[in-house]
Amino acid sequence: MRLAELAARSGLPTATIKYYLRAGLVPPGATEGATWARYDESHLRRLRLVRALTDVAGLALDEVRAVVAALDASGSQHEARGVAQWHLSPPVEEEPSEESRRQVEALLTRHGWDLEPESPHRRSLAAALDTLDELDFAATDEVLDAYAEAAASVAAVDVPRVTSETDPIVAAEKLIIGTLLYEPVLTTLRRMAHEADSVGR
Amino acid sequence: MRLAELAARSGLPTATIKYYLRAGLVPPGATEGATWARYDESHLRRLRLVRALTDVAGLALDEVRAVVAALDASGSQHEARGVAQWHLSPPVEEEPSEESRRQVEALLTRHGWDLEPESPHRRSLAAALDTLDELDFAATDEVLDAYAEAAASVAAVDVPRVTSETDPIVAAEKLIIGTLLYEPVLTTLRRMAHEADSVGR
Repeated sequence: MRLAELAARSGLPTATIKYYLRAGLVPPGATEGATWARYDESHLRRLRLVRALTDVAGLALDEVRAVVAALDASGSQHEARGVAQWHLSPPVEEEPSEESRRQVEALLTRHGWDLEPESPHRRSLAAALDTLDELDFAATDEVLDAYAEAAASVAAVDVPRVTSETDPIVAAEKLIIGTLLYEPVLTTLRRMAHEADSVGR
Repeated sequence: MRLAELAARSGLPTATIKYYLRAGLVPPGATEGATWARYDESHLRRLRLVRALTDVAGLALDEVRAVVAALDASGSQHEARGVAQWHLSPPVEEEPSEESRRQVEALLTRHGWDLEPESPHRRSLAAALDTLDELDFAATDEVLDAYAEAAASVAAVDVPRVTSETDPIVAAEKLIIGTLLYEPVLTTLRRMAHEADSVGR
């Protein structure tokens, strides 16, 4: 398709798409002459991903570039899913406490969750536990287990929709968008459940 | 306690506490003479709440003032919980589609969730469904049901910890802090569950 059709199908102005192309966030189209290039479904998907990363995740363009570069450099679906997801987690600046890190490791063991040694999620969770502790809201193992079971039950719904994709890049793009877009759904539903409980009393 | 002890126990500099007092985010202490005032546990809790709202929820001081004003003006625990929680949801600017709003109402009916007519959560969820739809990630009722069940299961753990409080303001403060602080725990656990699934393959 030509640029005009890519703009119409993505809902983005041509100027924005040209800007993303120049910034290297979207790969160039196939040159079809001096004045135009041909785009395909992969360009459309990439535009959706860039929009999700900027509008929904609130990433800066530099961070978006890191996510798409990690995606394009990865060899397998597992690697593509991992590295791209990791870039979504904001780096934790303060070193989490030894106690919270131990609580996270114990949780992973109890649930049989085997994460990569360099996964940033451990550190993110340990930092969140430290904040809870500082504000006198320390999470017990029982509470964390209930949360982990809820997380596993939504992941069981999320993952099959992604792994049915044979192209690793497509699968990773879908996982990133699904991860980001469904987070507000989950947190809003939790707030609704709190309110429904309060109304019910 | 005196201001110095309030600072030590809250971990906040006295200058910050004085600023919050002047801004009306924390009620004044009981005047005990020309040069000092007495503070109690309610001041300490309020400082924790203000810190959670600014640091964790990222609210501006004007928004924090609206939350604490709603809290102080409410008569019952239900009212305090409701109005304070509602202020945490960023207002949705674009009108959600009729279709998404119907999907939300059907979900509430299926799960027997009775929300207040003016609850902003309906609109937040409908807007999230519209974004999913625009990015070709439309949520089916089956997926939403799995998410709603997971949300209800964590709310079942959250709520008893709050409703054991007899003071409605204390209960509402705890609910707000718990709502905010446990959201990153839940979303990080979901990302961990995704990664554990990917490693497992």
